[in-house]
Amino acid sequence: MSDDGPVVVTGGAGAIGHLLVARLLDAGQEVRVIDNLSSGRREHLAKYEANPKFRLIVADLRAPEAYREQFRGASAVWHLAANPDIRLGTADPAVDLELGTMATFRVLEAARTLDVRRVRFSSSSVVYGYPSVFPTPESYGPLLPQSQYGAAKLASEALVSAYAHSYGLEGHVFRFANIIGPHMTHGVLYDFFEKLRKEPDRLEVLGDGNQAKSYLRTEEVLDAMLLAADRAHDPVNVFNLGTADRLSVREIAHKVVAAHGGRARIEYTGGATGWTGDIPQQLLAVDRIRALGWTAKRTSVEAVDLTIAEMVRGRGG
Amino acid sequence: MSDDGPVVVTGGAGAIGHLLVARLLDAGQEVRVIDNLSSGRREHLAKYEANPKFRLIVADLRAPEAYREQFRGASAVWHLAANPDIRLGTADPAVDLELGTMATFRVLEAARTLDVRRVRFSSSSVVYGYPSVFPTPESYGPLLPQSQYGAAKLASEALVSAYAHSYGLEGHVFRFANIIGPHMTHGVLYDFFEKLRKEPDRLEVLGDGNQAKSYLRTEEVLDAMLLAADRAHDPVNVFNLGTADRLSVREIAHKVVAAHGGRARIEYTGGATGWTGDIPQQLLAVDRIRALGWTAKRTSVEAVDLTIAEMVRGRGG
Repeated sequence: MSDDGPVVVTGGAGAIGHLLVARLLDAGQEVRVIDNLSSGRREHLAKYEANPKFRLIVADLRAPEAYREQFRGASAVWHLAANPDIRLGTADPAVDLELGTMATFRVLEAARTLDVRRVRFSSSSVVYGYPSVFPTPESYGPLLPQSQYGAAKLASEALVSAYAHSYGLEGHVFRFANIIGPHMTHGVLYDFFEKLRKEPDRLEVLGDGNQAKSYLRTEEVLDAMLLAADRAHDPVNVFNLGTADRLSVREIAHKVVAAHGGRARIEYTGGATGWTGDIPQQLLAVDRIRALGWTAKRTSVEAVDLTIAEMVRGRGG
Repeated sequence: MSDDGPVVVTGGAGAIGHLLVARLLDAGQEVRVIDNLSSGRREHLAKYEANPKFRLIVADLRAPEAYREQFRGASAVWHLAANPDIRLGTADPAVDLELGTMATFRVLEAARTLDVRRVRFSSSSVVYGYPSVFPTPESYGPLLPQSQYGAAKLASEALVSAYAHSYGLEGHVFRFANIIGPHMTHGVLYDFFEKLRKEPDRLEVLGDGNQAKSYLRTEEVLDAMLLAADRAHDPVNVFNLGTADRLSVREIAHKVVAAHGGRARIEYTGGATGWTGDIPQQLLAVDRIRALGWTAKRTSVEAVDLTIAEMVRGRGG
């Protein structure tokens, strides 16, 4: 671990964030979480509240006066907080501007002005828009995101890069495939289980079901992020994080229905794209992170099977 | 000309903007200029003030209530307004966030909510950061801008793309080389003449003088933009606009000194990069715009020579 002081984690109460917090505390680091608990949950962090190395600051990134002092003396910030709902951003374009781009700007300003030298940012494969090359390498261009969420991720990457080059920070940018695991509040598995809970006999699938993406488990994406933070030290370090295979929405629908008792009929709304802003095909080239020694332990199929099993057992809620 | 209604031009009083306004009026279009006159000049547009097809709204893009109604009934917006001073953005990171990213967002929101279907945006080669490929194609990645100005340009491109794909607008993104011509308020030629005006015997050059870039005349970049707006109709149309050659800062310094009487001695501050945020080497691949039928009439050398001659005659001020 290259960080020799406290670290700040934005979005540290979220599905990915709280597992990062666990890793950092396990490694002996002092952790300061900033989360507005809009989609993150205080319960995820309850077991650390007595830990003297842990601190939770309930604050919104749009109001820096509420959290700025937490950056003082920190050696790094993991900036994971974001609006997790792509479709909400399409309905109201201000959401991702404020919770994405502006929030990243405020985090970077806190880092710059309080001399936090390392910034690690959770970006997304959606910065590629609908690419023409699969698997898509980090060098792919032009970057034409299709959603406000994607625009905010790319704008945030651009800010990380500008801060790194202009003010001497070290930046890490992680472009995530679909990350799945316990406690997710969005995504195809969550949506399918929610639909079946409301209507057990019918599963409506947006699009024609041929959308196919890479699915990576939360614990594995954390392995990759921690490794890259430790080993890669260019001014800006961009890494795709995903599996080498992909799985179709049709296959996932069949798996979820089977796990749910098998009686729901699957209905497709039709069309190649599930919803406005969706990127129907996604597969990332992961040679860069592999060269550092990381590789996904589970395929997309295995990651989806495990996550479905957890959700059926009620551990995914 | 594909626009069948009034067009909005942000930054229409600027060095490039007012020449675009002239072209549009010459083509018979109704033009609504929005400019806060912070770097643009009302004098540039004085000759149109009696033209019933022309309207100047002095307003800041950060305050949409002051200009939003100008989008009503318009068929297109040319969004050229920006902070023109890269170094100012490094000194105060809020400048490009507000005058770049946020301003573009507000322009796009005005377009979306008032049903303006075409957005043309003046971006910059600085979105490439310091590329490893020359000439740099539009497909180059990763995009790692070095300055806040560059980050705001990339963030604005990302917003144009998201709006185009999410709401059905047509977007044009023009990545400019160094644009030179009359009335510039920034850039290497302006800086050199200003320095010699203050201190005629000495010209300080930032860096080692080996920085080398492509220089394109204002009137030629307008030809390219108007052609691309007319002919390219993908959801998002990205075009590099530059010349096929480049010129070093050292050569430019010698040309300026010669034009200024030849007596100033040139002093280099040293280092490959002139200033924080500077991209010392720039040459854009222009195959895409050439395929539409445009090619630069003047080389970078010819463009610089013409502009120096104009500045010496006092027409460049």
